[in-house]
Amino acid sequence: MGFDLKEYLKEKQRLVNDALERFLPPVADPTRNLVESMRYSLFAGGKRLRPILCLGAAEALGKDPELCLPVACSLEMIHTYSLIHDDLPAMDDDDLRRGKPTNHVVFGEAMAILAGDGLLTEAFYVLSNHAENELINPTKLLEIIRVISEAAGCRGMVGGQTIDLESEGKKIEPSLLEQMHSRKTGALITAAVESGAVAAGADDEARKALIDYGKHFGLAFQITDDVLDVTGDSEEMGKPVGSDEAKNKSTFPALFGLEKAREKARFHVNRAVESLKLFDDKATPLRELVKYLLKRKK
Amino acid sequence: MGFDLKEYLKEKQRLVNDALERFLPPVADPTRNLVESMRYSLFAGGKRLRPILCLGAAEALGKDPELCLPVACSLEMIHTYSLIHDDLPAMDDDDLRRGKPTNHVVFGEAMAILAGDGLLTEAFYVLSNHAENELINPTKLLEIIRVISEAAGCRGMVGGQTIDLESEGKKIEPSLLEQMHSRKTGALITAAVESGAVAAGADDEARKALIDYGKHFGLAFQITDDVLDVTGDSEEMGKPVGSDEAKNKSTFPALFGLEKAREKARFHVNRAVESLKLFDDKATPLRELVKYLLKRKK
Repeated sequence: MGFDLKEYLKEKQRLVNDALERFLPPVADPTRNLVESMRYSLFAGGKRLRPILCLGAAEALGKDPELCLPVACSLEMIHTYSLIHDDLPAMDDDDLRRGKPTNHVVFGEAMAILAGDGLLTEAFYVLSNHAENELINPTKLLEIIRVISEAAGCRGMVGGQTIDLESEGKKIEPSLLEQMHSRKTGALITAAVESGAVAAGADDEARKALIDYGKHFGLAFQITDDVLDVTGDSEEMGKPVGSDEAKNKSTFPALFGLEKAREKARFHVNRAVESLKLFDDKATPLRELVKYLLKRKK
Repeated sequence: MGFDLKEYLKEKQRLVNDALERFLPPVADPTRNLVESMRYSLFAGGKRLRPILCLGAAEALGKDPELCLPVACSLEMIHTYSLIHDDLPAMDDDDLRRGKPTNHVVFGEAMAILAGDGLLTEAFYVLSNHAENELINPTKLLEIIRVISEAAGCRGMVGGQTIDLESEGKKIEPSLLEQMHSRKTGALITAAVESGAVAAGADDEARKALIDYGKHFGLAFQITDDVLDVTGDSEEMGKPVGSDEAKNKSTFPALFGLEKAREKARFHVNRAVESLKLFDDKATPLRELVKYLLKRKK
């Protein structure tokens, strides 16, 4: 009752977008094209899911979510860099992302590589820039950098991307599929919630609960993403439907069938909600957000 | 008297190599190829110049250089990632580096992109992993992360790489050439010295002096590098001589002539040595290191 998820998302997206504007260096010679290329993908219509999860975790703990806006923005920079590099011709070779030409199509391959490198590095600049993070003490901030870099690097996302790359065209075991997704998508989503928890000073129990929420959120997110790739509307999604199958990618529907995949998604959504049982109604946004995954169209 | 630079470098290289071994995740399935690709370039015979400058700065301030071994290793990871991405077909398209096939030649383009991303992210994991850095307090460690990420990102190295990319085949102004190099090579070299200074608790004056040293070191390094590309021995350098000219790159010798370029190198070496005048003989390694640039063959 009374909680309007759509309105909540809109308000938080605005907050994140305004902060992202502040953090990037100006578009000016001699690196005009680099910064434009970074901005192009950063402002290409992302849902700001990871930043919102980070803010939502702080909110669930009763803290002002704006406390972790820089942390939230760093997560979006890392997410965006990973999309730019994933789309490269040598990787997934995608021309379209969110209905727009991908970075390398617009700026060329070399600039797309550099824009990704720039965004990834900038994320750590924002995280370590104490002037922007004075509400979080240095010990906590370091812990947040450790959590995020572990999730983003070879132990997490880059490792997951490697598994994805090497399984293309192969039928892989369900356990490897889950590991691939928990590293490729899940790790950064979990880090988003965990970093919000650390920023807000969560105790061990609350932190663990939010990490569990993040893990189930990540799996539910990936499964519903795979399902949408089979059943979704191309126009709504901004990319062709069936592209996973065309690329011979291992997906949950391909491995388990559509109905079983949907059931798995519901399971993880329920588990995510359950993880939050020790939180009061300040965790309503997190609860509604994960339930929304079952209804999403893009 | 009695300072043996060759012996000093050998000892410090061993220290750095041993530490790098410790910091990387194990080579194991399912990300075996990723970690092998990261290791391939990280242990491809680099001189460990940036790590040694970092250790040397701490030593000049009278501290045990091992204090900043993790910081030193993170600098080498960032340097290595930048070489892997620079060598990619979409960038400089180099097949040979230090006499060995470049990363993408051995592991393929996609894995080379991921190895670079992995090394860059791993650098920040090592920096933020407090267990490895317990000798440096969190506030200083955060400051070091800020210094390094600023130097490595779009404000520094990635920006310099952009200028390089966009000037290929053009004759550029000397001031832009200097900006390109001070960002592409100089920024991370300066950050190496500065981060060592911060780790060792330098006061403002000492820190500024070491930054000046780093800036002049960076320029002297780049100029002697350009000169070697014209006059060096291919076998000794592990790459073909004249490759800058073949690629129509703006270089110091191309812009100023060989003699003037050599003179500029001497100028910056002298200025680097002068910057250290407030330090005693604990700064001998830094002094000898920059003087060595004028004699180097590779």
